[in-house]
Amino acid sequence: MRMYDIIAKKRDGGNLTTEEINFFIDGYTDGSIPDYQASALAMAVFFQDMNEEERAALTMAMVNSGDTIDLSDIMGVKVDKHSTGGVGDTTTLVLAPLVASVGVPVAKMSGRGLGHTGGTIDKLEAVPGFHVEITSEEFVNLVNKNKIAVIGQTGNLTPADKKLYGLRDVTATVNSIPLIASSIMSKKIASGADAIVLDVKTGAGAFMKSKAEAEELAKAMVSIGNNVGRQTMAVISDMSQPLGRAIGNALEVKEAINTLQGNGPDDLTELSLTLASQMVVLGGKAETLDEARQLLEENIKNGKAIDKLKEFLSAQGGDESVVDHPENLPKASHTFELEAKQSGYIQEIVADEIGSAAMMLGAGRQTKESEIDLSVGLVLNKKVGDYVEEGESILTLHSNTTDVDSIKEKLYENITISESNLDTPTLVHTIISE
Amino acid sequence: MRMYDIIAKKRDGGNLTTEEINFFIDGYTDGSIPDYQASALAMAVFFQDMNEEERAALTMAMVNSGDTIDLSDIMGVKVDKHSTGGVGDTTTLVLAPLVASVGVPVAKMSGRGLGHTGGTIDKLEAVPGFHVEITSEEFVNLVNKNKIAVIGQTGNLTPADKKLYGLRDVTATVNSIPLIASSIMSKKIASGADAIVLDVKTGAGAFMKSKAEAEELAKAMVSIGNNVGRQTMAVISDMSQPLGRAIGNALEVKEAINTLQGNGPDDLTELSLTLASQMVVLGGKAETLDEARQLLEENIKNGKAIDKLKEFLSAQGGDESVVDHPENLPKASHTFELEAKQSGYIQEIVADEIGSAAMMLGAGRQTKESEIDLSVGLVLNKKVGDYVEEGESILTLHSNTTDVDSIKEKLYENITISESNLDTPTLVHTIISE
Repeated sequence: MRMYDIIAKKRDGGNLTTEEINFFIDGYTDGSIPDYQASALAMAVFFQDMNEEERAALTMAMVNSGDTIDLSDIMGVKVDKHSTGGVGDTTTLVLAPLVASVGVPVAKMSGRGLGHTGGTIDKLEAVPGFHVEITSEEFVNLVNKNKIAVIGQTGNLTPADKKLYGLRDVTATVNSIPLIASSIMSKKIASGADAIVLDVKTGAGAFMKSKAEAEELAKAMVSIGNNVGRQTMAVISDMSQPLGRAIGNALEVKEAINTLQGNGPDDLTELSLTLASQMVVLGGKAETLDEARQLLEENIKNGKAIDKLKEFLSAQGGDESVVDHPENLPKASHTFELEAKQSGYIQEIVADEIGSAAMMLGAGRQTKESEIDLSVGLVLNKKVGDYVEEGESILTLHSNTTDVDSIKEKLYENITISESNLDTPTLVHTIISE
Repeated sequence: MRMYDIIAKKRDGGNLTTEEINFFIDGYTDGSIPDYQASALAMAVFFQDMNEEERAALTMAMVNSGDTIDLSDIMGVKVDKHSTGGVGDTTTLVLAPLVASVGVPVAKMSGRGLGHTGGTIDKLEAVPGFHVEITSEEFVNLVNKNKIAVIGQTGNLTPADKKLYGLRDVTATVNSIPLIASSIMSKKIASGADAIVLDVKTGAGAFMKSKAEAEELAKAMVSIGNNVGRQTMAVISDMSQPLGRAIGNALEVKEAINTLQGNGPDDLTELSLTLASQMVVLGGKAETLDEARQLLEENIKNGKAIDKLKEFLSAQGGDESVVDHPENLPKASHTFELEAKQSGYIQEIVADEIGSAAMMLGAGRQTKESEIDLSVGLVLNKKVGDYVEEGESILTLHSNTTDVDSIKEKLYENITISESNLDTPTLVHTIISE
């Protein structure tokens, strides 16, 4: 078998066999196939696409290129959730205890990562004492006992995907549905998921700018999951403005607490319930999405969801008092209000630019070496469609410096107010439950 | 400027500016742009093509990536000919003295190369004493005096093309019209040509298997030439069977002598006159192709063409007696006849396979290190459409070993005889004189 022939076959619109895909991924991982052949193939895939069998084979070849996490000692169906990334996305903090509260095991492996705010682990570390430095054995035992635990990323998962993604990033071949879909799915599968729920974001703050693209990606991933024996469902959700109201680590923990108590922002609550319902169905704890939703809403009302959060936090060394006393979370030394310069309806809150402003306050990492300030961030007092009076606060900045003029400037530039009323944007565009 | 953006622009069907193409070629030549970005761009070009301006810019960027030959001290319009390669193609040996005999300067820079037979220099070296190791000054003086000289390749011409071609060869991106056309044209222009005549071969023995592909390539090259100020014409000619009758170095020299004396094979004579007519028009020595052809035919009849060959050979140390005494050329020790196993009409003589057989006899180089045997080769006694009696010789092998069974076997496999009569294949398909 020669890489040349594999590139030529794909270039001419042929379908690669599983053997050919394995040959490529194995050779690329061990270095016997050079970058310049891999980038030529990636560009050929960009133009010629891959069919369902090829996508599934590529996903599994990347899974098998490195370590895989074995969660078989955990009882039940391990359902993992993946979001394609957005701004102020607090859903994981809400979903994990919520789903665990109805008996679906949540064995979460999570990272820190770059971005506007920290990753799930950073956010959780805003809770004094909470840590993820536990052994795999402790992790398994905790999930079996409490149905929920979080551990940092271990092992060399999907090295082929890491290498290929790095190459695609510099050869203009990122934006290819089969390559994006297999990349995401391979990471989830290598992390040990039995079933997967996907939250594909669309809008200004998301990688997929249009709803059609987002749907195509979601369908591609659902198809891969189902083709490789991992039941998968997906939600297309709006990210034209930040989700919820809080953007920042401790601020999002507080928002998650409110949401698990039934007092969260409408959009975060709605999306959390939608995703959690899919997880509960895939986890086998309900027959239908409606039934699942009833169970989840009940556990918010009766306090089981918030109790599960307390149990989870204290099991990993966290101070559960933050739930009843959010003032025990890290707090920025100053707050500033962004006052509306005119009266009118909020037309637009550009999600990724608002996220950048939060990062400028110190909420996120620009490079791997950056230190995160867990206390800082933004809280939206108004969202798209809300009416605001001149001088009224659109959002509150939580900052540890008083030098916030340039950040305020950036915020004003990315929030539009005008006289015309408009409908609240649709939050959940599509539910793909196959 | 970033290479990433250039790849993305071409990927999305955009047209690259001259600045962008220069940035790519300069960076690729000096190594600041890596192979993996160049191969991704080449694949994007394969799918998205290049317009006329881009092709011209790419050609000139490759010309400017290295040394260029300055022929300005040679009087007159320097017209160069390029053939896309075939089997038994003796045209250069015929054309050079023929065109020089009517006053068009032929300043030929030539190589040895790999292939079924040697390059033009190897063939000429079959003439005892002939050599191309002359200085640039001698070269210029010879052309000014005799209108003809040949020199070996000097200087580092089109290094960008060499590097890019090597990369395309292993990334399945060779077969792209804009990339092939700019590669060929850049080499001719860097070699100092003022005007160019192209012989684009089509058929089994050629790179371009179909007439349509050959025409597309020819038109692309003519357009590049005219866009960068080098008047260019092209001929699409048949290479489904070998051209002429001789395949081998000394054997082709003898055939060229015969042709210049008016006794050559019909197809070689016709193609040589066609190409030479274009060269004469471009060289400004005739107004029309018909007028040019008359001059050339006259010089064959009146002996000026063959005299020019003698003058040329002796000026570079060659023994001109070979013209009147071809027995002074290197001669193989044995000849063998390939006898027809049945009577009938020759249906097919697969050009490239016949060429491979000549190489097996020692007529060509398989690797750079191979030694060429100038005396060996094949002479076709029958061509496609000819009638042959059972036992009659189809071709004669000229060999220095008696162990020719496997070569004969190969020849039999690639020559088809059947009862049905068929038309002689068309030799010159199309003449593109813009």
